[in-house]
Amino acid sequence: MTAILGMMSGTSGDGIDGALVNFYEDNKFELLWHDNFDFSREVREHIRKLMKSASSEDCAQAGSFMAELYYNAVASFRESHREKIDYLAVHGQTIWHAPECVTIAGKSVCGTFQAMNSSWLAEKAGISVISDFRSRDLAVGGQGAPLVPFADLRFFGGIPGDTIALNIGGIANLTEIRHTKNSDASATGTNLPFVKNAFDTGPGNMLMDALIQKITNGMESYDNNGIIASKGKTDKKLLEELLSDDYFARKPPKSTGREKFGIAFLEDILKNKFSGSNYPDLMSTLLDLTVFSIADALEKHVFPSGEISQIILAGGGAYNSELILRLTEKVKKHCKICLSDDFGIPVSAREAMAFAALGEAFLKKIKSNIPAATGAHKQVVLGVFTP
Amino acid sequence: MTAILGMMSGTSGDGIDGALVNFYEDNKFELLWHDNFDFSREVREHIRKLMKSASSEDCAQAGSFMAELYYNAVASFRESHREKIDYLAVHGQTIWHAPECVTIAGKSVCGTFQAMNSSWLAEKAGISVISDFRSRDLAVGGQGAPLVPFADLRFFGGIPGDTIALNIGGIANLTEIRHTKNSDASATGTNLPFVKNAFDTGPGNMLMDALIQKITNGMESYDNNGIIASKGKTDKKLLEELLSDDYFARKPPKSTGREKFGIAFLEDILKNKFSGSNYPDLMSTLLDLTVFSIADALEKHVFPSGEISQIILAGGGAYNSELILRLTEKVKKHCKICLSDDFGIPVSAREAMAFAALGEAFLKKIKSNIPAATGAHKQVVLGVFTP
Repeated sequence: MTAILGMMSGTSGDGIDGALVNFYEDNKFELLWHDNFDFSREVREHIRKLMKSASSEDCAQAGSFMAELYYNAVASFRESHREKIDYLAVHGQTIWHAPECVTIAGKSVCGTFQAMNSSWLAEKAGISVISDFRSRDLAVGGQGAPLVPFADLRFFGGIPGDTIALNIGGIANLTEIRHTKNSDASATGTNLPFVKNAFDTGPGNMLMDALIQKITNGMESYDNNGIIASKGKTDKKLLEELLSDDYFARKPPKSTGREKFGIAFLEDILKNKFSGSNYPDLMSTLLDLTVFSIADALEKHVFPSGEISQIILAGGGAYNSELILRLTEKVKKHCKICLSDDFGIPVSAREAMAFAALGEAFLKKIKSNIPAATGAHKQVVLGVFTP
Repeated sequence: MTAILGMMSGTSGDGIDGALVNFYEDNKFELLWHDNFDFSREVREHIRKLMKSASSEDCAQAGSFMAELYYNAVASFRESHREKIDYLAVHGQTIWHAPECVTIAGKSVCGTFQAMNSSWLAEKAGISVISDFRSRDLAVGGQGAPLVPFADLRFFGGIPGDTIALNIGGIANLTEIRHTKNSDASATGTNLPFVKNAFDTGPGNMLMDALIQKITNGMESYDNNGIIASKGKTDKKLLEELLSDDYFARKPPKSTGREKFGIAFLEDILKNKFSGSNYPDLMSTLLDLTVFSIADALEKHVFPSGEISQIILAGGGAYNSELILRLTEKVKKHCKICLSDDFGIPVSAREAMAFAALGEAFLKKIKSNIPAATGAHKQVVLGVFTP
């Protein structure tokens, strides 16, 4: 048995999710607890600053800064939970994710920067760390994202029927789990699950969060339950304009982040595109941008391959009932929407659990990138080990 | 037997040194070959640009960029040398080294940034990588530098008499190796060597290199054998002014880098301090700055503890006969100067060999930071492993 604490801080940069998972020899696993550690306002602001623009010095310090925060999170989790932790499997904080290669001084390189000084964290926490999961996928031509499909397959592959695992965090991403229907499968009576497709559909909560933070000058960090959005009326012309963005037209695999749908994107809307003065209208429009871009992606890239039994929702967006309402309206003719809680994966624990699963894969030398998801030309063992 | 290729690219950012060392069970080692891989002018310029100012995107790409170059170096070395390589022990490229802690959003953090995407390198080279040697020392209150003293002790600890291992690279650093003279030692008849002190004395070749690159518009990268300096006359007033810099007055342990003695330092001299027009005079002054700051450091921090049998010189400065001449003049009443070649460590291989030795220490779980050198409050195992 190996107890791995998966830890994740997302593009929203508002805190760290932790999930302690016991992995057993027989390939079974058990979630012992999940918890979260909120960043102070000062910390959030510094992370946003790093994402917006960072100097060499900032980059040098970002690793220890995030490691110190992850260490604080581990210490806080340990106060509440007594279970033994064998390893930390940590995502780090994405400061920059630009998986498209560019040529620099004759070298074709691409970059993803998950700030995390693993030595600092391992030393302070006194626990070995597995980290830097994205880099090796980039080295084999992948986008380094999404990585969660490996875990989705493990978590949801056993559910009957084809499934979409949909995560609505800062960015929204989906994993399309299908079952082989070949002669082998019918011979054995089993239909092996596999990931057919996985990609970022576009913004999740990121633009809505940025808007409310702007309006409230940072006092509120998200539109609780979509209450503000529910009071607004979507600006259809603006929505159409936003949906015409190149990203939505691109074919999967594709991944995106704050570089694309961050504060600059919102500021451009406020400055050049949104002519109204009623913020709930804009909030409603941004919510619809998330909902429509998810629904469009399903229509274009998923439903044509065959019907889906269920969409399993996780991430912060699963708490936004206005979002669920509108998304249900858009997809109800195809399938039902349920929460990952119904399958033993708490919505707020899914990503942290996924990193625990990626950590276990590293320890077992299992290749965990999924080429259909990242676009890599081969599977590799992801991660770096710090004793 | 384990064959480790130590790889190092220094603050001068002009290429990669490699040294393949076989480590045997009985604690013996053997240098199989050493070689170097020059960066193109375009690459050098990009590295300098990163050191001067880098954006978040630059930081994200710097790791793969350097990994690609290290991979090119491995491929080039393999063309010339057939010996099997079990591991790569790599330093990466220092983009920023600021070991003094600062408080960010309530967290005390410090940063060192050795650009190296270890996953990228391990994948492309097909060899496991040990890297990020500096970070863990920072986590225990050290400066993350110098790390070479661990290897100096291994390489030169067996030489009779107390010894200074002096490396003149971009930055100049020394390791003071003394022998215990306590009752235990006299009982056993052996005097165990230990590192009493180790620190960066200040600039090595960095300012001289920067000056010649400026004068020749990058056509020449160093003052070959100190020929230009030897034609100049030191501006004593300027030398005195430069020597009054705070860094030289600070007590060891201390470390420095391009952030301090880089292009900005030279440009300040050219703009505000050097009133002459004869570049050889300035070159001579910069050479004397290196020589005087080394000699002063010895006078202040080494010789008072007792006489030294020899200074063992390594690094690019060992090829600069004008520098050796002037340094010999300054220290001849205390000790002789010899080259590390005389002790089986080629002057241009010392640092790469040191990283091979640090890699072996990681694999054997040997703690390799030396608190007397880095200021750390404890010894730790340095490095991160990428399979």
